[in-house]
Amino acid sequence: MYTIGDYLLDRLASVGVTELFGVPGDFNLKFLDHVVDHATVRWVGNSNELNAGYAADGYARLRGIGAFLTTFGVGELSATNALAGSFAEHVPVIHIVGAPRKELQASRAKIHHTLGDGDIGKFYRIDREISCIAEDLNAMTARAQIDNLIVQVLFQRKPGVIHLAADVAETPTEPPTGPLPLIEQHDSEAAARDFERDLRAFLPGRTLAVLADVLVHRFGAQDRLADFLEKTKVPVATLSWGKTVVNEEETNFAGIYAGAASYESCRHTIEDATALVTLGVDFTDNITAGFTTKIEQSHQIDVRRDTAFIGKNAYTPLSMHRAIHILEKVITDLKPEYMPTGAPEAEAVADSAQLTQSQLWCALSEALTPGNLVLAEQGTSFFGLAAHHFPSDTVFIGQPMWGSIGYTLPATLGAALAEPRRRPVLLIGDGSAQLTIQEIGQLIRERIPAVILLVNNDGYSVERAIHGEDQYYNDIPAWNWSKALDFFGAGDFGLTLKAETLDELGAAFEKTKAHPGLVFLEVRTGKKDYPKQLVRVAEALAAK
Amino acid sequence: MYTIGDYLLDRLASVGVTELFGVPGDFNLKFLDHVVDHATVRWVGNSNELNAGYAADGYARLRGIGAFLTTFGVGELSATNALAGSFAEHVPVIHIVGAPRKELQASRAKIHHTLGDGDIGKFYRIDREISCIAEDLNAMTARAQIDNLIVQVLFQRKPGVIHLAADVAETPTEPPTGPLPLIEQHDSEAAARDFERDLRAFLPGRTLAVLADVLVHRFGAQDRLADFLEKTKVPVATLSWGKTVVNEEETNFAGIYAGAASYESCRHTIEDATALVTLGVDFTDNITAGFTTKIEQSHQIDVRRDTAFIGKNAYTPLSMHRAIHILEKVITDLKPEYMPTGAPEAEAVADSAQLTQSQLWCALSEALTPGNLVLAEQGTSFFGLAAHHFPSDTVFIGQPMWGSIGYTLPATLGAALAEPRRRPVLLIGDGSAQLTIQEIGQLIRERIPAVILLVNNDGYSVERAIHGEDQYYNDIPAWNWSKALDFFGAGDFGLTLKAETLDELGAAFEKTKAHPGLVFLEVRTGKKDYPKQLVRVAEALAAK
Repeated sequence: MYTIGDYLLDRLASVGVTELFGVPGDFNLKFLDHVVDHATVRWVGNSNELNAGYAADGYARLRGIGAFLTTFGVGELSATNALAGSFAEHVPVIHIVGAPRKELQASRAKIHHTLGDGDIGKFYRIDREISCIAEDLNAMTARAQIDNLIVQVLFQRKPGVIHLAADVAETPTEPPTGPLPLIEQHDSEAAARDFERDLRAFLPGRTLAVLADVLVHRFGAQDRLADFLEKTKVPVATLSWGKTVVNEEETNFAGIYAGAASYESCRHTIEDATALVTLGVDFTDNITAGFTTKIEQSHQIDVRRDTAFIGKNAYTPLSMHRAIHILEKVITDLKPEYMPTGAPEAEAVADSAQLTQSQLWCALSEALTPGNLVLAEQGTSFFGLAAHHFPSDTVFIGQPMWGSIGYTLPATLGAALAEPRRRPVLLIGDGSAQLTIQEIGQLIRERIPAVILLVNNDGYSVERAIHGEDQYYNDIPAWNWSKALDFFGAGDFGLTLKAETLDELGAAFEKTKAHPGLVFLEVRTGKKDYPKQLVRVAEALAAK
Repeated sequence: MYTIGDYLLDRLASVGVTELFGVPGDFNLKFLDHVVDHATVRWVGNSNELNAGYAADGYARLRGIGAFLTTFGVGELSATNALAGSFAEHVPVIHIVGAPRKELQASRAKIHHTLGDGDIGKFYRIDREISCIAEDLNAMTARAQIDNLIVQVLFQRKPGVIHLAADVAETPTEPPTGPLPLIEQHDSEAAARDFERDLRAFLPGRTLAVLADVLVHRFGAQDRLADFLEKTKVPVATLSWGKTVVNEEETNFAGIYAGAASYESCRHTIEDATALVTLGVDFTDNITAGFTTKIEQSHQIDVRRDTAFIGKNAYTPLSMHRAIHILEKVITDLKPEYMPTGAPEAEAVADSAQLTQSQLWCALSEALTPGNLVLAEQGTSFFGLAAHHFPSDTVFIGQPMWGSIGYTLPATLGAALAEPRRRPVLLIGDGSAQLTIQEIGQLIRERIPAVILLVNNDGYSVERAIHGEDQYYNDIPAWNWSKALDFFGAGDFGLTLKAETLDELGAAFEKTKAHPGLVFLEVRTGKKDYPKQLVRVAEALAAK
């Protein structure tokens, strides 16, 4: 019998979901039977619900949407941090919560997984705080609620929550009769005309550069931007949040802009441009060394999702896509002067017997190959790697806005399943890895040939760099990392490596490339060896 | 300089907190310096915030109050499931959240660990849904806020949340000038008089039994109840939630009452009593086989925290403590007939080459010794163990109301630190253990001589018993459990054992008793071998 649960799965499948993450629980077991029986949606169990939410987030970043399933109360609340992260980082994730039968809910009975106070709406109210839309499905309106929720999640690029009572899930219905009514953006022709006219007046005599960031990716304009850059060769930098939103191998790539923590050549390209196109940019503290950008609004052409600005003048509604087209046309016509891009700056890497963070991130970025999917944990990994140039066709995932440590390990599972052709490279410190380590079990079960590069530096070094360098609270229990794959049951699929020197690191990279399965590479660095970029950010913050 | 942070720590210390759990984060690091410097409060770091919340909950169950510290947003939300569990299970836990400086909060800036939407109050609103009191401290009123919060948490036996902005924590103040104004319950002398009078009229010609449960423990009447039972020898049963709230070695112990899933002798003692004293009882689904109790209100003397009932007549305000005193006096005077208590029933344990759940829980309960602290995960462990009698002076911890799998492993850490004289025995399945496994690292770092009995039955057997016995979603990745202590770095402190037969189990118990450190004992049982009690509960639910 075709049910509302099937309808939900079919609608998810229609927008590209082929994997559903989550943890079973007594209020979602029967719905899970429908998942198991679905033609294209497959169940991928996780070790816990927070990890399920992280995996769905990683998946959505590559696939365009992700979904996970938990059970009412206990499972649902375990995932709130993940869902809030998807909100902060503009990731469209749908959290399906298996709930008790409607009648049982209405009875306000003291059932397990509730607070026992009869207030059955608490968890739903919590979900509403961290989603753009939450729907408690009822049998009469479930089809419209499901459609509306998926449409909103996709349009807003924010998470949504579905409460799916066990009896509602089992209610008979019919398959969808037409496609989802997805929202299309419409441009104002007048706004487009005015933007082009004013751009032609604005550009002459100015020197041009582009600063693009993560929202270009989130709002689907990445290919459009690539065309634009290919045709115009205008110099472009990104912020670290949007790393790999442009091809970093091109000669017009100016590097990663980070306000006062930028390399000088990149800072010059961006801050001294008298016509700076900012594309899908949202300045947050972690990517600007604490709001230390110096960009004059009078120099700025700011292109947002549905509005463009020249200085203080707004042109709206005008899609990012269309605005880039107009920019391309006008720049091609007027051929304005471009800001220079210096040769890629790289920090001087000193020789050292013990492996240093500087050595590590240089060697790692050189060892990457096109196609890699790189996830850097929001610790020394993110700060260490951000400024290094990546090969073309690599995808970078970080979480600098939400900054929840432990995120990247389960996100690796999700992102890898979303684009299996990409070999994932996960960079994570020992402190962060301890939060979500169990998801290695799922990487093994799903046969993900990930490379886990574990930076073992005896604790929370990113915190040490900020405060309490020698305090006990920044220490963590010492695990035998070399036993990880053995414990999690990798068998022959796994390869465990260790490097304490640059030579050992190079040898480990060679073995990694030759191994078709999962690699766990433990790299030892000094406990107070912080990446230069982290030091720069800390200094910029201190100066402020 | 003495600060508001110090004041908070001193007030926590004054009510018995000597360990503060949690995870460091950039909005709580400076406050952590004050924790490190505190004379009696010690920092115990956890692997992640959910585990910290669970540990604080386990601690509070033995110590009477617990506290943990996280950082704004990311850490805070990771712990919502734990805090909601403390609410559902009546456990007084204080969650301290290190937050950004007040000025930064007011700026609505796009700072990391926020959703970037300027709505800084979201997390606080979430906290309010799952606590009895939440306070966002400000410098002018922080002292009163702290006092009021601790007083309310202790009185209501529910969690509370403190938002502690970094600058508020650093604001100078003076130490407390007097004790906390704890709430004292006052009885109505008229209510006490009426209760006694009506009890004297009610009891004659009736047969008496007592059913006590978890709220006797929570509201501090456990010692009073023990005296009462010692003096009157009235037959007493408990529900499984309140297991060990009375001495199970006494001859008047009638067993664990579980509605239709009770052993017949216990069911008879409770349901056929014509005067049934229910003490601190709250009937929830998991402990009553789905609300299958048969208790006539006209036979019931119901003693709650501040009100007693005889049938439908209420006597209030009357504390549980005072009501027990009155019961003792009247029973001693009138000497009513008691319900019989059968000899402790035990399920028939069949011989089996492969170890069975029946064998396991019988052998385990016989191997316990006075003083043990037993934690049973809300899976086959809880259902398997609940009906077995424990030695005197043992403490049992389960979580049948909230039922969040994975809870007991971090709770073991907390409970063990709260009463170090008790050797903890943790009973947990492989599915549950995967959710929170990393806390073994902290058990090792804190040198907790726990016994972890891991029931390896290839997945979520408690779910299999309910639905989807052979479905993939109830499978989990196969870990090499025997490598756990090696991976987590136990060294000589750890001892790893394994048992697949009853003889091997007996030998393992002997080795466990001889080992002064942490023991990890993997026990294999069949994947579809469910404890009898779980089957009974499932049957009772199905019959309903």
